Amino acid sequence: MSTAIQKQSLPDMGSANLAMEYEAVRQQTVALCSQLTAEDMMVQSLPEGSPTKWHLAHTTWFFETFVLREFSGSYHPVHPEFRALFNSYYNSVGVPPAKNLRANFSRPLLTEVFSYREQVDSAIVNLLAKNRNTALAERIILGMHHEQQHQELLLTDIKHALLTNPLRVVYGAGSKAKFAASRSLDWLAHPGGLIEIGYAGDGFCYDNEQSRHSEFLLPFQLADRLVTCREYLEFMQEGGYQRPELWLSAGWDAVCKHGWQAPLYWEMKASGEWAVATLGGIFSLAEPETLAAPVTHISYFEAEAYARWAGKRLPTEAEWEAVAASQPVQGNLLETGNLHPIASAHGNFQFFGDVWEWTNSAYLPYPGYRPAPGAIGEYNGKFMSGQMVLRGGSCATSSSHIRATYRNFFPPETRWQFSGIRLADFI
Amino acid sequence: MSTAIQKQSLPDMGSANLAMEYEAVRQQTVALCSQLTAEDMMVQSLPEGSPTKWHLAHTTWFFETFVLREFSGSYHPVHPEFRALFNSYYNSVGVPPAKNLRANFSRPLLTEVFSYREQVDSAIVNLLAKNRNTALAERIILGMHHEQQHQELLLTDIKHALLTNPLRVVYGAGSKAKFAASRSLDWLAHPGGLIEIGYAGDGFCYDNEQSRHSEFLLPFQLADRLVTCREYLEFMQEGGYQRPELWLSAGWDAVCKHGWQAPLYWEMKASGEWAVATLGGIFSLAEPETLAAPVTHISYFEAEAYARWAGKRLPTEAEWEAVAASQPVQGNLLETGNLHPIASAHGNFQFFGDVWEWTNSAYLPYPGYRPAPGAIGEYNGKFMSGQMVLRGGSCATSSSHIRATYRNFFPPETRWQFSGIRLADFI
Amino acid sequence: MSTAIQKQSLPDMGSANLAMEYEAVRQQTVALCSQLTAEDMMVQSLPEGSPTKWHLAHTTWFFETFVLREFSGSYHPVHPEFRALFNSYYNSVGVPPAKNLRANFSRPLLTEVFSYREQVDSAIVNLLAKNRNTALAERIILGMHHEQQHQELLLTDIKHALLTNPLRVVYGAGSKAKFAASRSLDWLAHPGGLIEIGYAGDGFCYDNEQSRHSEFLLPFQLADRLVTCREYLEFMQEGGYQRPELWLSAGWDAVCKHGWQAPLYWEMKASGEWAVATLGGIFSLAEPETLAAPVTHISYFEAEAYARWAGKRLPTEAEWEAVAASQPVQGNLLETGNLHPIASAHGNFQFFGDVWEWTNSAYLPYPGYRPAPGAIGEYNGKFMSGQMVLRGGSCATSSSHIRATYRNFFPPETRWQFSGIRLADFI
Amino acid sequence: MSTAIQKQSLPDMGSANLAMEYEAVRQQTVALCSQLTAEDMMVQSLPEGSPTKWHLAHTTWFFETFVLREFSGSYHPVHPEFRALFNSYYNSVGVPPAKNLRANFSRPLLTEVFSYREQVDSAIVNLLAKNRNTALAERIILGMHHEQQHQELLLTDIKHALLTNPLRVVYGAGSKAKFAASRSLDWLAHPGGLIEIGYAGDGFCYDNEQSRHSEFLLPFQLADRLVTCREYLEFMQEGGYQRPELWLSAGWDAVCKHGWQAPLYWEMKASGEWAVATLGGIFSLAEPETLAAPVTHISYFEAEAYARWAGKRLPTEAEWEAVAASQPVQGNLLETGNLHPIASAHGNFQFFGDVWEWTNSAYLPYPGYRPAPGAIGEYNGKFMSGQMVLRGGSCATSSSHIRATYRNFFPPETRWQFSGIRLADFI
Repeated sequence: MSTAIQKQSLPDMGSANLAMEYEAVRQQTVALCSQLTAEDMMVQSLPEGSPTKWHLAHTTWFFETFVLREFSGSYHPVHPEFRALFNSYYNSVGVPPAKNLRANFSRPLLTEVFSYREQVDSAIVNLLAKNRNTALAERIILGMHHEQQHQELLLTDIKHALLTNPLRVVYGAGSKAKFAASRSLDWLAHPGGLIEIGYAGDGFCYDNEQSRHSEFLLPFQLADRLVTCREYLEFMQEGGYQRPELWLSAGWDAVCKHGWQAPLYWEMKASGEWAVATLGGIFSLAEPETLAAPVTHISYFEAEAYARWAGKRLPTEAEWEAVAASQPVQGNLLETGNLHPIASAHGNFQFFGDVWEWTNSAYLPYPGYRPAPGAIGEYNGKFMSGQMVLRGGSCATSSSHIRATYRNFFPPETRWQFSGIRLADFI
Repeated sequence: MSTAIQKQSLPDMGSANLAMEYEAVRQQTVALCSQLTAEDMMVQSLPEGSPTKWHLAHTTWFFETFVLREFSGSYHPVHPEFRALFNSYYNSVGVPPAKNLRANFSRPLLTEVFSYREQVDSAIVNLLAKNRNTALAERIILGMHHEQQHQELLLTDIKHALLTNPLRVVYGAGSKAKFAASRSLDWLAHPGGLIEIGYAGDGFCYDNEQSRHSEFLLPFQLADRLVTCREYLEFMQEGGYQRPELWLSAGWDAVCKHGWQAPLYWEMKASGEWAVATLGGIFSLAEPETLAAPVTHISYFEAEAYARWAGKRLPTEAEWEAVAASQPVQGNLLETGNLHPIASAHGNFQFFGDVWEWTNSAYLPYPGYRPAPGAIGEYNGKFMSGQMVLRGGSCATSSSHIRATYRNFFPPETRWQFSGIRLADFI
Repeated sequence: MSTAIQKQSLPDMGSANLAMEYEAVRQQTVALCSQLTAEDMMVQSLPEGSPTKWHLAHTTWFFETFVLREFSGSYHPVHPEFRALFNSYYNSVGVPPAKNLRANFSRPLLTEVFSYREQVDSAIVNLLAKNRNTALAERIILGMHHEQQHQELLLTDIKHALLTNPLRVVYGAGSKAKFAASRSLDWLAHPGGLIEIGYAGDGFCYDNEQSRHSEFLLPFQLADRLVTCREYLEFMQEGGYQRPELWLSAGWDAVCKHGWQAPLYWEMKASGEWAVATLGGIFSLAEPETLAAPVTHISYFEAEAYARWAGKRLPTEAEWEAVAASQPVQGNLLETGNLHPIASAHGNFQFFGDVWEWTNSAYLPYPGYRPAPGAIGEYNGKFMSGQMVLRGGSCATSSSHIRATYRNFFPPETRWQFSGIRLADFI
Repeated sequence: MSTAIQKQSLPDMGSANLAMEYEAVRQQTVALCSQLTAEDMMVQSLPEGSPTKWHLAHTTWFFETFVLREFSGSYHPVHPEFRALFNSYYNSVGVPPAKNLRANFSRPLLTEVFSYREQVDSAIVNLLAKNRNTALAERIILGMHHEQQHQELLLTDIKHALLTNPLRVVYGAGSKAKFAASRSLDWLAHPGGLIEIGYAGDGFCYDNEQSRHSEFLLPFQLADRLVTCREYLEFMQEGGYQRPELWLSAGWDAVCKHGWQAPLYWEMKASGEWAVATLGGIFSLAEPETLAAPVTHISYFEAEAYARWAGKRLPTEAEWEAVAASQPVQGNLLETGNLHPIASAHGNFQFFGDVWEWTNSAYLPYPGYRPAPGAIGEYNGKFMSGQMVLRGGSCATSSSHIRATYRNFFPPETRWQFSGIRLADFI
């Protein structure tokens, strides 16, 4: 985090603007809950997920713990017991509660969590009003990005919660997935050679995006759009889930252990047709619009097996970034309100938004990476084991949160995120 | 269930009275929730427990499924999807949802569950108004007892939910445990010989309480009160949890696996003193009133080990019933509002209420037992494996729900029920 | 064990005879291994089983630990380290090695274990030559019965080991199962009333067979032979393994968890016919001789489900003993060398030998039961939880080891023992 | 595998030489068993290991399956059933037996396995005598390397088996660890820049060592020797195993789950001193010679935590190879007979032998990597998930089996291999 914001950039960002942006990010989280009930916000339907209410509280805890307690001498927490209660995984702050306990936190009540949010927001804004400290601004901006990450988790967690209920609850009318016709796949060639990846701008980045450094690449090409449901269905119809030779050994183990037959949220209807459950309702895969949409909610193992079946491979994160760096950061992101990937239109390469794209790169430190001292240093670095890098953001990612250098990461079995496939090949 | 109510008793119980009693039982369940929030009622903090909201819905489902659908030709369910959703374990009704899914049922909302209760209650009362059928009355009475069982589970489940929250939430002011001084233990002798156990009256009983039959007993004696916290603390102080020779093999395995050091809800304070968390708050075991109360929330294994340490044994269910049959059905039951066991006063033998008493009898069919045909036959019989019998009811049991012949049952590792110890010995 | 041998019987049993009988029992164990290799004797193919070599060593350890170390002041163990190594579950002797470690005991070598046997045998015989102490004789006789129990376990363990090997190894030519035609089932009626069970003779018995005591029984009848493979196959063909309503709840869980479709060692051949693998080879269930043999290697859950399907029930252990007490202790026991159950001939009620018969009685103490002090008290009593009683011995039980009062016990999921079904009913 | 041997090299390696080398490698495996008994060779003491006898059979199966069955039209297997029995993980050959079954393979007997080896060896030598085919030679050489890999696994598996036995069996006098005094650590600097890694010679390599390709490195330095036991002990004494901030999150989870307090095979003696159990016996860590030896049998997580504690990091595999490529392939390898790492002498950088060195590189395909078609393609490629790369070989690696480009890989929790630490740092 030592590199989070370059000093020269701060004079341009006055405290007033920061306070406004802070409040906008915070408000976004609340807005995502507008159609949820207090009961919905209690559900933790998968071990790696969290209840909505917990996300609301924990993001607030982050500002309280790492901003107010560190930068505001006069801050008196209204609920000192929340310091232990809403810690996620910061051992430096104390021993966090077991993750599965989060579903038991009926207290504090949702209304109390909203009050907690307001108390902390008010204290942050007051602090900013009298303080133009660079370190403070950096920390608040980190907290805003932390909150945006949790917005995406909030959405994927509540999606799982509502769809795990046999009643198949629809998240809300706000989800209006527009499906278009598909287009044929083309390739974007890159000559390879010595390129640079990693963040080097003067805005915010996570510590794991640095140091910017050189990588040497062979000539390669990337698909100019994501793999669609139609294409993935072909893989399934050709026995994709029944042929061990298409899979990594650990991937085949996962197929057998979990009984995977299709992406998460796909279901076989009585008619024998597949349908896909989304935040906005259930759509039939007999419809061309649904077939044209990018496949999502698949694990790294499925992405990797699909690529092998297709005679291609997944890109490395360096290859991905080498191409994406020159693309505009726009697409089907959170702001579209679709909350589901949509088909690629002509000229839309889908590098940003729609689905996180599994790369074939393990999540490991860049050369020169050093985590920050103290609790903040636990943010990213300690997870650099057993996870694969995903790039590009999804339909649940804020446009202000994503960039070409952004490194997301999940274990290779993960399916509840908006994750999909872009093919790569050598030339 | 064929024997649930003797025919001669029904003429005395007019439908009007039954309707009134029905409404009283149903209202009792709602009353137990009066200090809980919708969020509290979502929590399922242990795999064998259920959320409060689920209890509210499932008990209603029982009346809808086994009374309205069977006895009322004109009944149209408002929510046909609840038939599958709120099934607990009746395979004859369909494949029930996995038990751990209950914590995901944010929908239906609590308000909808209350509406569901009212719709079903109204239909039941209407049905009773025009129908004096014996079979109907029997089935409704079964449902009322089913509901009373769930009232007790609701309390033990919410106790666990609130106390598992690190905030240690107090259930409510309604809990007013009065602790008295302890009294010395005396023995109630019984000459043994051929006795009869099992239900033979003309009121309600569960199928598992029949047939009434003879058992031959050696002369024995039962303690005239329950084992107290003070006595149990001595067992702990003499290394009770560290000495494998005091335990059944499976019990010692449980001690090691779970790291048991004390009863559930006991906690060591920083001062080195033990305290016990109750529905009404946390009480210190340094206080004589707390020490004098019966020990509770212990497993069969702990009860059995304590008895061995004490040079005694647990009673069989036949011994227990042989003595308890002549005792008045009164004591520290749900109606006292204590919601916690209290010390035995002079002349109070504590056979009914306070805590369920572990017996050394496995839960097995009585001679002549045959479960009823159909789904109702799944109520009791299919659980006759791997469980031990408990007798006498607890501070969470309605007085109209308990009797000397009542056979409760739980696996020997169970601790979240109000369960305790009465010693026995041969003479 | 205080009651193992009645005092008056000992003068009749001179030490010379005891030494001869001791050597015969010990030799029997070695004989059972005659066709096994040192490598076979290393295999531990299921967690609850043990390698043959371990059985050879542990039975010797029993005599060394509980006879020589206690009764022979001059005994110097050649391998003091075996005291810890070959302890099974006697916490009073020390912390036993984890059970799954037994498969790692390549050392001591088999030849060293045989030497160990000889050293201990020699010391026992010498001790007996100069000592006519009652307690000593009792302890040795206990050890002989302990060894006979392990002979049966040795056979069922090695059966599993050899048949788990994909090569399906045949144990030996010693197994010569003679299958006869089946006969129709008849019923043996008993008037019920007050009867006595438990051991009261002047020979050896285990502590768990005492005290002899009264039980009151309703009139009942027992099948006059065991359930055959042919009958069990009908149960399977009528969907026995697919219908949850036939099963105890825990039984159905076991069916689903383990994927049970047939008894252990039954296998579907490519022809669609069932075959059964035995110690003597694989036999087709298309042959009438195989169909007529008693079904074996089934769990309590399967026995109980079969009985429910058949409209009958399993006997209690008191019912079984009430009838079996008057039967001669003879049958298809270890001495026949069949090592597999065979069809019931006319007049052969199969109470002893063939298969252990699951009863519907939990393994619990008889009235007045008190385990012996010290390590020997761990022999039986501490397992009185979670197990069901089996009666009558099997084709792997020595005739000198079985009697009508003998209580064997296993958890209800157990299938690797020679266990089968006798039906019961009320009259 | 397409690149296993360059064509131009084959004329120099006549079939006679190949046959001699083949026999030498095969004989080496047998020699490693010379002090083991048939019983020792049955033990499988950890799920990821295998019995010695299985290694003897499986390596033979490899030659039978991939050489004789493919290249020899006239080959008739003596034991056709071994094709299924000794398959490890080649799904293309059939469904392999569950790995834990290997401990049950008492049959074939060890003597039969040795006969099997001789039959196959004879057939291979005959085949070579009349065939100078390049593809054949390549495949045999692959089998030889496969066998050498299993020699190392055989040693680490039997080490675990013998030391898991409470008797702590010594593998043999062949182990003669010579411990020297330690020397201070120095650094080997590298200027970074564009370097090449991967195999490009004309001898044998595994498919995963190709394609040779460019990597861009920052300036860095590597320690000129391995981390010693003395240094690792300091880490332990400064609370290394108690401080979560030193560990990756998954590493700390492993510490807690397994209760790690020290490297595998370290044990605290009653005196409070540490000792380390080796193939040659138990050595005290109070002795300077033992302290000076490299620490071994540690997981990636421990290596990574140690490096963080030391203020350094682990090298990437590219950094390691960039330096090691110019080092002579010599050191404390299998041929020394030490079978344990020894202290670094002056001028000995320990790049080859002693211990495999954990790198901070995930095991992933090099650019251009394509696995061979068919079963042989399953050799390496399908394991490219969830594993970390280790470099340099160990005291159990043949000198003819190791080279600077060799990529070994194990999951990050692995401890039973000879694995240790070399520190790295940026300059």
